[in-house]
Amino acid sequence: MSVIEKVISIQSPFKLVSREYKQDNTLIKVGGHVIGGQDVHLIAGSCAVESRAQFLEVAAAVKEAGATFLRGGAYKPRTSPYSFQGLAEKGLEILAEARAATGLPIVTEVMDTRLVPLVARYADILQVGARNMQNFSILQEVARVGKPVLLKRGPGATIKELLMAAEYILVGGNNQVILCERGIRTFENFTRYTLDLSSVPLIKQLSHLPVIVDPSHGTGKWPLVLPMSRAAVAAGADGLLIEVHSSPCDALSDGQQSLLPDKFRNLVDEVGMVARAVGRCIPGCGVSQ
Amino acid sequence: MSVIEKVISIQSPFKLVSREYKQDNTLIKVGGHVIGGQDVHLIAGSCAVESRAQFLEVAAAVKEAGATFLRGGAYKPRTSPYSFQGLAEKGLEILAEARAATGLPIVTEVMDTRLVPLVARYADILQVGARNMQNFSILQEVARVGKPVLLKRGPGATIKELLMAAEYILVGGNNQVILCERGIRTFENFTRYTLDLSSVPLIKQLSHLPVIVDPSHGTGKWPLVLPMSRAAVAAGADGLLIEVHSSPCDALSDGQQSLLPDKFRNLVDEVGMVARAVGRCIPGCGVSQ
Amino acid sequence: MSVIEKVISIQSPFKLVSREYKQDNTLIKVGGHVIGGQDVHLIAGSCAVESRAQFLEVAAAVKEAGATFLRGGAYKPRTSPYSFQGLAEKGLEILAEARAATGLPIVTEVMDTRLVPLVARYADILQVGARNMQNFSILQEVARVGKPVLLKRGPGATIKELLMAAEYILVGGNNQVILCERGIRTFENFTRYTLDLSSVPLIKQLSHLPVIVDPSHGTGKWPLVLPMSRAAVAAGADGLLIEVHSSPCDALSDGQQSLLPDKFRNLVDEVGMVARAVGRCIPGCGVSQ
Amino acid sequence: MSVIEKVISIQSPFKLVSREYKQDNTLIKVGGHVIGGQDVHLIAGSCAVESRAQFLEVAAAVKEAGATFLRGGAYKPRTSPYSFQGLAEKGLEILAEARAATGLPIVTEVMDTRLVPLVARYADILQVGARNMQNFSILQEVARVGKPVLLKRGPGATIKELLMAAEYILVGGNNQVILCERGIRTFENFTRYTLDLSSVPLIKQLSHLPVIVDPSHGTGKWPLVLPMSRAAVAAGADGLLIEVHSSPCDALSDGQQSLLPDKFRNLVDEVGMVARAVGRCIPGCGVSQ
Repeated sequence: MSVIEKVISIQSPFKLVSREYKQDNTLIKVGGHVIGGQDVHLIAGSCAVESRAQFLEVAAAVKEAGATFLRGGAYKPRTSPYSFQGLAEKGLEILAEARAATGLPIVTEVMDTRLVPLVARYADILQVGARNMQNFSILQEVARVGKPVLLKRGPGATIKELLMAAEYILVGGNNQVILCERGIRTFENFTRYTLDLSSVPLIKQLSHLPVIVDPSHGTGKWPLVLPMSRAAVAAGADGLLIEVHSSPCDALSDGQQSLLPDKFRNLVDEVGMVARAVGRCIPGCGVSQ
Repeated sequence: MSVIEKVISIQSPFKLVSREYKQDNTLIKVGGHVIGGQDVHLIAGSCAVESRAQFLEVAAAVKEAGATFLRGGAYKPRTSPYSFQGLAEKGLEILAEARAATGLPIVTEVMDTRLVPLVARYADILQVGARNMQNFSILQEVARVGKPVLLKRGPGATIKELLMAAEYILVGGNNQVILCERGIRTFENFTRYTLDLSSVPLIKQLSHLPVIVDPSHGTGKWPLVLPMSRAAVAAGADGLLIEVHSSPCDALSDGQQSLLPDKFRNLVDEVGMVARAVGRCIPGCGVSQ
Repeated sequence: MSVIEKVISIQSPFKLVSREYKQDNTLIKVGGHVIGGQDVHLIAGSCAVESRAQFLEVAAAVKEAGATFLRGGAYKPRTSPYSFQGLAEKGLEILAEARAATGLPIVTEVMDTRLVPLVARYADILQVGARNMQNFSILQEVARVGKPVLLKRGPGATIKELLMAAEYILVGGNNQVILCERGIRTFENFTRYTLDLSSVPLIKQLSHLPVIVDPSHGTGKWPLVLPMSRAAVAAGADGLLIEVHSSPCDALSDGQQSLLPDKFRNLVDEVGMVARAVGRCIPGCGVSQ
Repeated sequence: MSVIEKVISIQSPFKLVSREYKQDNTLIKVGGHVIGGQDVHLIAGSCAVESRAQFLEVAAAVKEAGATFLRGGAYKPRTSPYSFQGLAEKGLEILAEARAATGLPIVTEVMDTRLVPLVARYADILQVGARNMQNFSILQEVARVGKPVLLKRGPGATIKELLMAAEYILVGGNNQVILCERGIRTFENFTRYTLDLSSVPLIKQLSHLPVIVDPSHGTGKWPLVLPMSRAAVAAGADGLLIEVHSSPCDALSDGQQSLLPDKFRNLVDEVGMVARAVGRCIPGCGVSQ
């Protein structure tokens, strides 16, 4: 059966992303790490790169605490045009410096088709943010660069739409896609979004792609980040995207949901215990070696 | 400070249910068990009591697998008047017989103020279902019987409204209330509801009452019950409400979300491992003894 | 074909409420008025009956402005046990006095199966509130009294569930059911609920029962009540449920969404013009006579 | 007070779009028409430009029926990469030909920052689709072209976010923005989305910008398009976006929600009557002349 015949024979609306098309988990190799295998990864950093000093400090802190990837936004999608919009290319340079200093691969967002080549020069993993999950031009553009893509679920998007958005990237020739649950819009307003953890085992059943969870955006409240991180890993997540800030009250964005480095260190330990209980491991833990 | 002064001084809309009013976890003692302490309880059984033979079989199976409470509906709230409505008092008698046979305390629902005394004669824990979470007459009535109440969150209810509904029961003189997250209505339609696990740590922070999770109704799909059970316990749940049926395809209600006894046995083991990873325990496990 | 054969032959989950079962609109006759025919009815009054003086004043005002039915709650479902719960039977007596004074038939809510006979002695139309839409015991009880029932959609209920709830009443022998759209829970938080006006033409297509709209609860903001009243009538509603209060800021409940009598008088005029534009009429207007 | 001082003095999160900043309605003049004034505009056409013959036929039909603007997609955002994606620049050329043939100004979508100059050469009004409401790069780009922008509300976006997205365009120097309600994601699944008509009067109170409504996408079912069009105009909408197709069953997208030309002609008449009932007018009707 040719690839085309195989694709055509698949009944579900998503083809290349489906388990029917590919039974084995997709493993994504970045900077000596594997996402989608036995390891549970901690991708940490501040929401935005605010300054060189601020970001190098947080980068060192999350590295020391056990993070395996570094996140930070150089281009920030902000609801208000009057909010801090990111440092742009200057931010990308700081990210690269932080990578050099810590050895941690970098995850950062691209919001504009025209910027994909520039961001791809700096980033190890290109993030397509929740608001752009269905900007099909961006999906087609990131499909063309030979780097892994972290695709976040839109707050108003169904799981099916998330998988169809990933399908655009795979059809475009890039099968290194990591999906990310980060909460959906519901009537509940004690939390910023409702973190839909059912999506994790559901996607694992429907697709071969890795899935990570962002409990920082998903809850919007730092005291919920630890319990929901544990829950995400217990549900089968391949990693966590965690906001860490040395001084959350001064953060230029998302301070309420950021953990202090100390709390993040504790989270790494706690999550490691849950990971072991479900047969997984934090990179570097005794079990996986 | 008098009790009334204390209540008046509390700023939040919920008073008696708040952590501000009572700092220590409320422990609910039923049939030799404690809900709200270190143990994580498995409350299992079929959605409805369908017949004597059917229910005694499932009761024996869940007891053998490690359940500590038995659930089953004698009065069933059904969307359609043409669906099976439960065996009524005959169902209560079967529940009592199953308790005698297994030693497991019984959880069953009451849907009508007039039936509270009758159901309370049979039940060890009275369930107020999701559709009646804000039937304030039922809340006032179950406040008067001296038995614990399991209060399920309505699918369209906020966490605040759930806590306010519990407040009705505490104000009525009954502080033995167990809250239950069972999924909310959202736009996502791969799952029957969206299980809002963030509610677990949030309620734990706001209130001293125990919280359990119903992943069977919350997801509506049995393959999601195990991962979401693990996640619920990792998030801090004090127990799980699980539907088990010896023959899910023949179930008179909720067959798609029921586990076979074998799968439930495996769930008890898996959940036990996660419980230990967060410092908790399934009753009878080595750690807690 | 016998009635039973006819019912069995209907494919949709709702049988007796469906257009397939009964093609003509159900006309409900109360106090000389017809609901479900050409007339668009204004059912107005304060949310709660607060006192004799307060309610007689608002009753006279809404009568004078053109309302054809009087609404007021004697038993109030309140989220908090610390909020005003209504005057109970005393409130029913005031409602009866207001009816005698104005000639307007009364709509009032029943929240408890045990109170159905009492409320039915006073009310012309029994209201089953949104929180009790799926309290099947109440539905069965109001089916037994020979009076029309106003059934409000639950904020977390689908249109299908609303129609199935009505089916309980029709199966119980009472086909005088008026459905009411009053807003659903969504993520939008500028309004109290999201008034789902699509439900009006949809229910009209699926069912023969009359449908009215409650823009006061549905929006929670009085400046939206006039435009949404117009929109409801343009969408095909058979009536409107409007909260009016002589002194909204002092209202014991729902002050923010109550109209002053003057604004209500204007609403009657404006709604009358839209009614005529869609071939309907406010009772007493020239066209219908 | 300088403009900057005025902006800073505004308390709400949206500044330039607010009524506080500008009290009078913004009037947008395109092709001899005014959007935001007394006229209610009908913007009609097929979802996608499928072929020259198909589109010229539908363009002639909607013109004859009374439409004042022509809509059609040359670049189509589709959930699946396997669905028809539009004719791209060829589609723009057909749109221009249809404009020449009918005299109707053209509304068409732009999905990619790089295509803004190209689409702006053909379009009279540039549409930013629901999925891109928060693609801030596109918002900044359309702010730079001197043409009106039709900004559709995202299905997961709050009214506040819609207004903040418009703020990006006004801050960028373009105040010719038309907002469009097209339904939000909710749990109700009889309709494709829930058309939130409350947003119309709410936005009118908060902002000076015109608001139109898309009942075709908002309901996803053609039998609901007429009643919801009436309701939208009764709620205060400045226009309607209606899908019309000569052969809905063959439509390459959105056939279920498209009206036949005959039904659209009837809609224009019916909407005209509701418009007059609220003091508005369809262009060309006697009242406005």
